[in-house]
Parts: sequence; C-alpha cells; structure tokens
Amino acid sequence: MTKFDDATQAIKVDDTTYDVCLDAGYTIGTALNGGYLMAVLLRAVVDASPHDHPVATSAQFLRVARPGPATVRLERIRSGRTTTVTRASLVQDGTPFVEAFVTTANLRPYEPGAEPEPGELTWSAPAPPMPPIEECRPLPAPRPESNMPFNSQVELLFDPPTIGWYKGTPTGRPEMRAYFRLAEPQDPDPFVIALAVDALPPVVFSAGARGWAPTVELTWYLRALPAPGWLTVIGSGSLIAEGWFDENVEVRDSAGRLVAQSRQLARLGRG
Amino acid sequence: MTKFDDATQAIKVDDTTYDVCLDAGYTIGTALNGGYLMAVLLRAVVDASPHDHPVATSAQFLRVARPGPATVRLERIRSGRTTTVTRASLVQDGTPFVEAFVTTANLRPYEPGAEPEPGELTWSAPAPPMPPIEECRPLPAPRPESNMPFNSQVELLFDPPTIGWYKGTPTGRPEMRAYFRLAEPQDPDPFVIALAVDALPPVVFSAGARGWAPTVELTWYLRALPAPGWLTVIGSGSLIAEGWFDENVEVRDSAGRLVAQSRQLARLGRG
Repeated sequence: MTKFDDATQAIKVDDTTYDVCLDAGYTIGTALNGGYLMAVLLRAVVDASPHDHPVATSAQFLRVARPGPATVRLERIRSGRTTTVTRASLVQDGTPFVEAFVTTANLRPYEPGAEPEPGELTWSAPAPPMPPIEECRPLPAPRPESNMPFNSQVELLFDPPTIGWYKGTPTGRPEMRAYFRLAEPQDPDPFVIALAVDALPPVVFSAGARGWAPTVELTWYLRALPAPGWLTVIGSGSLIAEGWFDENVEVRDSAGRLVAQSRQLARLGRG
Repeated sequence: MTKFDDATQAIKVDDTTYDVCLDAGYTIGTALNGGYLMAVLLRAVVDASPHDHPVATSAQFLRVARPGPATVRLERIRSGRTTTVTRASLVQDGTPFVEAFVTTANLRPYEPGAEPEPGELTWSAPAPPMPPIEECRPLPAPRPESNMPFNSQVELLFDPPTIGWYKGTPTGRPEMRAYFRLAEPQDPDPFVIALAVDALPPVVFSAGARGWAPTVELTWYLRALPAPGWLTVIGSGSLIAEGWFDENVEVRDSAGRLVAQSRQLARLGRG
C-alpha cells in the first residue's frame, strides 16, 4: 500500500458509515487540501457502490477541515443499471466539512491503442499546447515556516510563464499548467486524479492575486481511466469579478487522452 | 406575473417544504426540461435563503419528472456571512427526481457602465465569436406529434452552421450557439438563466448524434446579474467517449458580460 493509499483509507463501520483519518501531510497552511478530502470521500463512496468509478463528483466545501479522525456518512440516492448516485458527507465532531454528490459508473480499463466499438460515436478536443517536460520547472521549496507539507506529496513541473507570479511577473491572465504525479512511485487512478484536479496553485495567482483562495464548489468528471505515467494538468479561468473566480482544470494522461474535467467556484483571497 | 414566473412558482408550506406544480408547457417529448426543473427548485431555495442569488447549483437528474404537483424539500447545510448552502430535493409521490446543492450569495445589481471598486481585481475572457442576430435562424417548428411544447416557451436564434445537423450536415464537432430569450416579454433573471443553460439541443447533435441525451449531472455558476435583453448561449463539448459526453455552456448578456457558466455530463442517446 502506498502512502497516498494509506492516507486516503476509509474503514467500513456499516453500509452508511466509514471511519477515516485525515493526514496532516496533505495540509496547506492550516487547511487540508480539497482534492485530498475528495479522494478520502471517494474511497468510501466507491467501496459502498455497485459501480466502480466516480464519473461525477460535486463537492461543497463548507469549513476548513483539520487533520485527525473523521467520518464519511453515505446516503444512497439512486442505483440503476448504468449509474449509482450517492450523497457523501465528511463529518468531524458532528459537523459536516464537505458535502458531495457522487455518481459512480463503470469505465473501460485503459488499453494502449484501444479502438472504439463498431458504430460508437467518439470525438475529442485537441490537447492544449504544453512544452515538453524537460522545459518545465518546479516551484522553489516553500519556506519551512509556511507549513506546506502538501507540496512534498506531489511533483508539479510547471510551464514556466504560469509561475512567473512567483518572481513578480504574472502573465496577467488566470492560468496554470503543469505535469503532475505523486512524489512516491504510484500510477494515476481515480483517487490520484481527485488530488490532481485541485493540486495547482490558484489560477488567479497568474492574474495578480495572492493569498489563500477558498474553494466554495468544485465539480469534476472522470472521463476515462488513465494510462500510467505523468498527468498534464491545465488550469484556466474565464472571469474574476465581485470577489469570485472560476478555475477550470483539464487533466490529460501520458497518452494525451482527456481523463478528467473540473471546474470550481472560489473566493479571491484577501491580502 | 409572467407565465414563466407562474410556472416556476414555489408556495411555502414550512421552512423546509414548498409546494410546486410542474407545468406541462415545459415538456420535451415525455420529459420535463432540466433547466425548468432547476428554476423551480431555485425559487424555493432563494425564498428560504438569507442570500438572494444562486451562485452555484449542482443538480443530479435521477429520474424523468412528469407534469403535475410536486414538493421541494430543503435542508440548510450551512449559512455564513457570505454564502448559504442548501440541499434541495424535488420529490413526486415520495420519490426524489432531482437532487441539488445550491450556494446562494449576493451579487451586485446590473448597472450600465459600472466600474469595479478601487483596487478590485477583475478579468474576463473575451466573448466567443457570434454572428449578429440578424444572421441567426430558428429551428423549424417541431411536428405536432413530436410533443415539444417547450420549444414555444423560448426563442432561440442559432448560429446557422450549428443547426446544420437538422438538414443532415452536422459540423462534426460538439457545438451549438444561439441567442436566447423567453417567448413572452420578460428580461433575464437568475431563474431565466437556469432555463437558458439547458435550453439548447444537445451539442452532440452537431457531432452526428441523434436522440434524447439524458443529463446525469449539471453544475452551473451565476457570475453576474444580467443586463436586460437577449442572452447569448454558447455550447461546446470536449469529449465524446464510452457513451458519455460533456456539454459546456457559457451565457453572456446583451452587454457582452459573462453571466453564467454551466457544464453537464450526459449520456448519448440510443438510436
């Protein structure tokens, strides 16, 4: 079992209750990373579902969750032949911190060079341009006093202009692009992708914003099971207004296939 | 009261229960339109919320709802200074048909030429290209036997290539672009926008698909209160695979401002 698998473990208590232990290693400042919290929730949802893969997850981030024991409560909303819909709540001391609806279904296993079935309609938008990985760069390690253990769980190699903000030269547009993998040797799976969709620094840093940007709502779709290797994580935004911004993230696998799409609504940080 | 306001009315029974009557006029084939169902749900949510505007709505479409009496059940999840999060369920005969999380907040009233506050960070992606309204065209009226009363509630004037599928010449890409307004004289508001984000024919019709394409999950963000006049509704998709597709819809107001963003995950129709 990898460290990530261990840190996202959900232990079944009964059909609607799972015990989890939120790992301080996924903290950014004083808050646990939202993608990590979704991965924990999804472990419980998938374990309890007759379908294998979380194809749609809509999460409401209500309060800042802290490391330590917590409970995932499940409510089966509907289960049919193709999909199961579950409400999942992450609860600490009787208070919900994350509330989500999750649709599970079955996706095909990844097979290199697999062809669609005869008569099957398929179409994909081209992959956005991304420099080769050799030209991409990590952010400098955070200062120890900034308490960013999350940063050592993942490897992010950025398209250099999108981290210009770090040196005081933001691009002026909400954008952030990087190659992503876990720091430990582990190929991507749906839980790693849950982490990937919320692993970038806020896209608004490239538009000149600073400070913690709390996610209010995040919905992501798992569109295919990923090929082994690096993921590419392309973040962008459409509007910054009235203290709100949106962050779109497209995740491609090492074969260039679109494997996940995410959009979140978040608040601009203060200061 | 306009016909739309009347058809989406929610009558308060108590703090967590509203009576509604689902109007057969918003039917497409045998199903009620999903945007109409969201508008009905949102009437109840907004009435019960201390905040005025539904900034984030994540809806799970569980079953095909039929015209007639129904109930909206509300559960207040959290309410703070900036936002309120509510779970809303649309129930017929004790069975949920739509389940949603809705975040309400307060947006600024529309003011022509309004400037951001001093020091406020704002940014907007440019509006996608759209031909002038004089060059756009409606779809031919549906045959009476196809039972499409929804089509007479709204006016949709399409960018002509995006309805080429109707004459057997689809563009080959998932896309659909139109000007939108209610058929009766009524300026857009958040409830009209709920209708607008799911009013286009499925974007996959332009990629060669036909048949009813059931929405599984739809999340939309209200980003600003709209200027009076026509809305522009720009639909696109990123991936059609394994029988699933995504549909992105961007809604702009008559002043060209981005007022809403929507994404849905849906199933390809059969046949």
